[in-house]
Amino acid sequence: MKGKARVALLEKANEPLRIREFSIPEVKDGCLLVKTVASGVCGTDAHCWRGQVKLPLPVILGHESVGTIEKLGPGRNADSMGEPVEEGDRIFWVAGHPCNKCYGCVILKDTTACSNRKSYGTSYSCSDYPYLVGGYSEYVFLTEKSFFFKVPDSVPTEAAISFGCGFPTAIKGFEIIGGVGPGKSVLIQGAGPVGLSCVVIAKLWGAYPITVIGAPQSRLEMARRLGADQTIDITHLDRPEDRVKKAREVAGEVDLCIEATGFPTAAAEGVELIRTNGKYLLMGVFSDLGPAPINPSVILRKNLKLFGSVFWEPRHLHEVLRLLSIYNDRLKLEGAVTARYSLDDTTQALHDVEAFKCVKAIITPHAA
Amino acid sequence: MKGKARVALLEKANEPLRIREFSIPEVKDGCLLVKTVASGVCGTDAHCWRGQVKLPLPVILGHESVGTIEKLGPGRNADSMGEPVEEGDRIFWVAGHPCNKCYGCVILKDTTACSNRKSYGTSYSCSDYPYLVGGYSEYVFLTEKSFFFKVPDSVPTEAAISFGCGFPTAIKGFEIIGGVGPGKSVLIQGAGPVGLSCVVIAKLWGAYPITVIGAPQSRLEMARRLGADQTIDITHLDRPEDRVKKAREVAGEVDLCIEATGFPTAAAEGVELIRTNGKYLLMGVFSDLGPAPINPSVILRKNLKLFGSVFWEPRHLHEVLRLLSIYNDRLKLEGAVTARYSLDDTTQALHDVEAFKCVKAIITPHAA
Amino acid sequence: MKGKARVALLEKANEPLRIREFSIPEVKDGCLLVKTVASGVCGTDAHCWRGQVKLPLPVILGHESVGTIEKLGPGRNADSMGEPVEEGDRIFWVAGHPCNKCYGCVILKDTTACSNRKSYGTSYSCSDYPYLVGGYSEYVFLTEKSFFFKVPDSVPTEAAISFGCGFPTAIKGFEIIGGVGPGKSVLIQGAGPVGLSCVVIAKLWGAYPITVIGAPQSRLEMARRLGADQTIDITHLDRPEDRVKKAREVAGEVDLCIEATGFPTAAAEGVELIRTNGKYLLMGVFSDLGPAPINPSVILRKNLKLFGSVFWEPRHLHEVLRLLSIYNDRLKLEGAVTARYSLDDTTQALHDVEAFKCVKAIITPHAA
Amino acid sequence: MKGKARVALLEKANEPLRIREFSIPEVKDGCLLVKTVASGVCGTDAHCWRGQVKLPLPVILGHESVGTIEKLGPGRNADSMGEPVEEGDRIFWVAGHPCNKCYGCVILKDTTACSNRKSYGTSYSCSDYPYLVGGYSEYVFLTEKSFFFKVPDSVPTEAAISFGCGFPTAIKGFEIIGGVGPGKSVLIQGAGPVGLSCVVIAKLWGAYPITVIGAPQSRLEMARRLGADQTIDITHLDRPEDRVKKAREVAGEVDLCIEATGFPTAAAEGVELIRTNGKYLLMGVFSDLGPAPINPSVILRKNLKLFGSVFWEPRHLHEVLRLLSIYNDRLKLEGAVTARYSLDDTTQALHDVEAFKCVKAIITPHAA
Repeated sequence: MKGKARVALLEKANEPLRIREFSIPEVKDGCLLVKTVASGVCGTDAHCWRGQVKLPLPVILGHESVGTIEKLGPGRNADSMGEPVEEGDRIFWVAGHPCNKCYGCVILKDTTACSNRKSYGTSYSCSDYPYLVGGYSEYVFLTEKSFFFKVPDSVPTEAAISFGCGFPTAIKGFEIIGGVGPGKSVLIQGAGPVGLSCVVIAKLWGAYPITVIGAPQSRLEMARRLGADQTIDITHLDRPEDRVKKAREVAGEVDLCIEATGFPTAAAEGVELIRTNGKYLLMGVFSDLGPAPINPSVILRKNLKLFGSVFWEPRHLHEVLRLLSIYNDRLKLEGAVTARYSLDDTTQALHDVEAFKCVKAIITPHAA
Repeated sequence: MKGKARVALLEKANEPLRIREFSIPEVKDGCLLVKTVASGVCGTDAHCWRGQVKLPLPVILGHESVGTIEKLGPGRNADSMGEPVEEGDRIFWVAGHPCNKCYGCVILKDTTACSNRKSYGTSYSCSDYPYLVGGYSEYVFLTEKSFFFKVPDSVPTEAAISFGCGFPTAIKGFEIIGGVGPGKSVLIQGAGPVGLSCVVIAKLWGAYPITVIGAPQSRLEMARRLGADQTIDITHLDRPEDRVKKAREVAGEVDLCIEATGFPTAAAEGVELIRTNGKYLLMGVFSDLGPAPINPSVILRKNLKLFGSVFWEPRHLHEVLRLLSIYNDRLKLEGAVTARYSLDDTTQALHDVEAFKCVKAIITPHAA
Repeated sequence: MKGKARVALLEKANEPLRIREFSIPEVKDGCLLVKTVASGVCGTDAHCWRGQVKLPLPVILGHESVGTIEKLGPGRNADSMGEPVEEGDRIFWVAGHPCNKCYGCVILKDTTACSNRKSYGTSYSCSDYPYLVGGYSEYVFLTEKSFFFKVPDSVPTEAAISFGCGFPTAIKGFEIIGGVGPGKSVLIQGAGPVGLSCVVIAKLWGAYPITVIGAPQSRLEMARRLGADQTIDITHLDRPEDRVKKAREVAGEVDLCIEATGFPTAAAEGVELIRTNGKYLLMGVFSDLGPAPINPSVILRKNLKLFGSVFWEPRHLHEVLRLLSIYNDRLKLEGAVTARYSLDDTTQALHDVEAFKCVKAIITPHAA
Repeated sequence: MKGKARVALLEKANEPLRIREFSIPEVKDGCLLVKTVASGVCGTDAHCWRGQVKLPLPVILGHESVGTIEKLGPGRNADSMGEPVEEGDRIFWVAGHPCNKCYGCVILKDTTACSNRKSYGTSYSCSDYPYLVGGYSEYVFLTEKSFFFKVPDSVPTEAAISFGCGFPTAIKGFEIIGGVGPGKSVLIQGAGPVGLSCVVIAKLWGAYPITVIGAPQSRLEMARRLGADQTIDITHLDRPEDRVKKAREVAGEVDLCIEATGFPTAAAEGVELIRTNGKYLLMGVFSDLGPAPINPSVILRKNLKLFGSVFWEPRHLHEVLRLLSIYNDRLKLEGAVTARYSLDDTTQALHDVEAFKCVKAIITPHAA
């Protein structure tokens, strides 16, 4: 290991990321240094770059990454569920760091409700120790607070990273609603990483039929490949009422609707589409884009249950890896990665993700 | 028993109810005839009278009534949970009749999701057998399909009827959310029968503090008497943001919010007031008054759970009676009945209820 | 239709069933007459025949049957969830009749908790109207109280009847525990109809690995064909500690254990095998064979949850048919029926079932 | 602060505790030193002393203690839910320390399922840093891993400590079963700290009637004072069948049964006493005293749900303190403390607790 790491640095919004070289800190007690194999380019990264998310610049983006353990600090010889690890092992690390001492963390025992949540790749400045706190870097430095899990040998790196943070996000959402069940009809609004993860998960739970409403066609095709029984392209369905009408025709009675779009209006549409006593899981409208005209009377008269779900916890990432170790032979999620970029081309990656040019893009800092 | 029954009949919207005399049908197998002791005047009755609810006129209003068994038909000798009954016993009958053969009734096993639900006092015309199908009448005729429960001896009629159908409505709502729990903070929007029932129920579940936001003062006083720890009078809080601000100051962190107002905007306000990982129970916006500007991002980022709940089932009325048999010595819910009217004065009762002149009004067809 | 029906009658325990001819009652309002296509021979039927179940003899056994509608009484033109039916349609009828007026039915709203439950094929004497109250008969007479569902066209009769009442029993059990979920490990004790149904259901819920411990080999082979990942033959594992040891080796950590054996000792073994915070579903020990030495300290120290589940409700049968309409193309459950008997050979069928000579046996009263 | 602390030390089973003096370690980053106000004498302490629990002797017993903050280490200025604290504040510290890196802690997210759980007062030897790791000591040293909560000013120390670890144990048990609810009948087996805590909690949840079966009379009297509606003295009910018969007579239909006795046979009795579809919470049989003859057929035929629950998490202690801050004015739990001992009399305290001579005994190391 050399003592330096190249990083793609976000110094100013909307400007190209800059390649910098950082010194690697000493790997002290409980810490570990990870050599990045691949880091996913999340839609949020593009928003960060565009200045739509408040960040402590300069920041190293990248919060969904697989790497190999370059160096284990003293006392760190197992992953976050106690599996022994050694240098060279492939791991998926958890970007989020809860404070573990607020009402959310301790009393609700839900770190997604943490009031002081920080996250590698977004809310840590790389000006502060341990500096290498984002995935768009040759190396990432994990402190004793960081969670990580060994990636099972049978799971390709690109499968693990396929839907990035969208996959554990979806796993947590399904946990909150208590899963679905065989023969339940599911309507998924949105075909991005969260929506596609939901297709995979709903299929594993036996749901039928699974309908995806979204765009573009390439993603809807991926949805069908992953198990969606029917898809609706919204490209020319501009009005909410048109989307509702079409979804009603195609999906029929919907036991579970999942919002994975990011657009408030989807929530208003979903409420109309769910059958009596059905459920609605909201995971997409993370950014506050204001209210939507939702009819509470419909919620009441249909005995609906709505569940908001934000973020995820370490165990949800573990669940992703565990499910892939069982089912990826069939799912082949590595197929979702359709574009790979070097560190030097990171800005181009952000452009392409923003323009929906790929299903999933990754940065591979050490690729030849 | 004479062979005739006087009824107050709704023949045309907005016109005074007319006193008519009906012949009492023969009490055949499984049926029973009930002599009305008291029938509650629900806010919905006023809406029905005003023509805001589609009805198969002529209709005998009154869907929350206690009476004594005048005559038991052959084979009917127990109430709906098997308690033996005899003539003279006081009973509370269930107005709603599910079809028991639709998706809601059979597959969801939830008769509040019945697609063909009919109800005494609203959706049956009194032109059809068995004619005496509403509570504003000296006698009510229950067929073999009707559910009813004996009123425990220790429970005064006016306590049983105090919050009318609002009480079992609230019981069902609490069932859906899994109850509350000791020391949980509850904010109740609305101080009508549903809201006041929620005060009673939340108190029995040990909630604290219980805050009621509503009007007028007389109802807020009743709320405090029933266990509300704090109340907010919305009389001069006309703007949603003012109500939200005030509620936030007074109620603090809200674990459970309950909408019992009937106004869509309340739903938008409630979503803002609930704490992270909290719950929202919507029971008031029964009539479709259109959408409200609800922010789905807030639902998502706070991991909120929203539950719509409509109607109730026979067991929820039984639960009301059972709770009163245990707790009414302390609650003295009969105090909620603040106005009594003869059949001849029913129109006046509707006027008074519409004008919020009483906490609860009842019709007593046989009172001296 | 002729006016007579041949039946195989249980007149005295342990004696051959006698072929008798009954007159068919008039099909009055709300009733229907069903021409039996096939009736499953349940293990319980063998117990009934052996006198191990108290019955109001004479009785027509057979409580899991598919038939075609021979005649619809006036007013009966839809199945129990409202689907229109006509004469000639294939239906699966529900044997159990709850009273709908006891604490279980009304207050718990769970007809499996009915205190007065009666069932075609066991607890009705065929001496009483409507006489044709069991499936080992050319015709079955359903009264207005009976539930039944149309069998989807795509579902072969033998698939619908494959695991008989064991299938809806298992569906209800899974409902009670809230289902399982992808990647959860399941251990099923017992390879009879309930156990095999659990294999199917657990597989549909995405469970992995699914282990079945039971006998004989023919049933374990069926289990593997239906999706079990591993099986344990208990033929030479006579002692509880041997079975526990073997199951621990093979199944590893068990998230969900399911008792489907009928033997109390299985419950004691299962408790030892479940992992911390796991669940145990008990569905097999229906007959009271006394206590087993269960260690409550193990339940406590592992935070276990145990769920007893008895009987099922109409919607669970509907769920069976709905799942088969989706998944039977792949499952081909008709393969579970390995023996068919005429009415005249019913006694032989009981012998064979008792001796575990078949996976599932059926009576086909009208087969050539 | 002097630099020494007197402790009552368990050096050898069954021998009197020895008074020793320990040096107080330096209060480094994130640590704090607590001056013990009172430490509860738990039944487990007596078992530890008797050698019935394997311990890393020498050990300082005492795992349920309130003290004042003597010294806050650098960086420690808030309790475990973020409430600011300063020296002199009264706190209740959490004895248990999960590992936070095993399957239980991370994947189940339930530290009561931790495979490596250690606890002050039992599983730490006082030969190892930080030495002062039990409550029978003038001072207790909490490391950065320890959780603690500020005791609300309105809560007397003896109220906070009244049922010791039994109270959060019971809080966690009720959480697992989803609470009870108004008008639900509860039968509590056992009148020790866990059983009495359950009386308090069940009452706060509105349960009725609450029946306690146990001994001796002094504890049953306390149970009635805390809200039990009826009590059964088992002093002369030696046979299980007698206890079942008596409990059935007195308690009637039991919606929820709670085992808080420590004796396996109670579990067999409880199963018989619960009504159809009822629940059973097992919290008492912590020590493995072997199996009891439990009838699984009864569990099945009554659709019972059994829940084992062990240990508790920090938030459950916080809930105790929060409930007391609301309700102790009425409950006056300080009345449960009926005996106080100096450090020098700790052995006597263990004798008295073993002989059931007090409801709750405490050690007060600094009392005059």
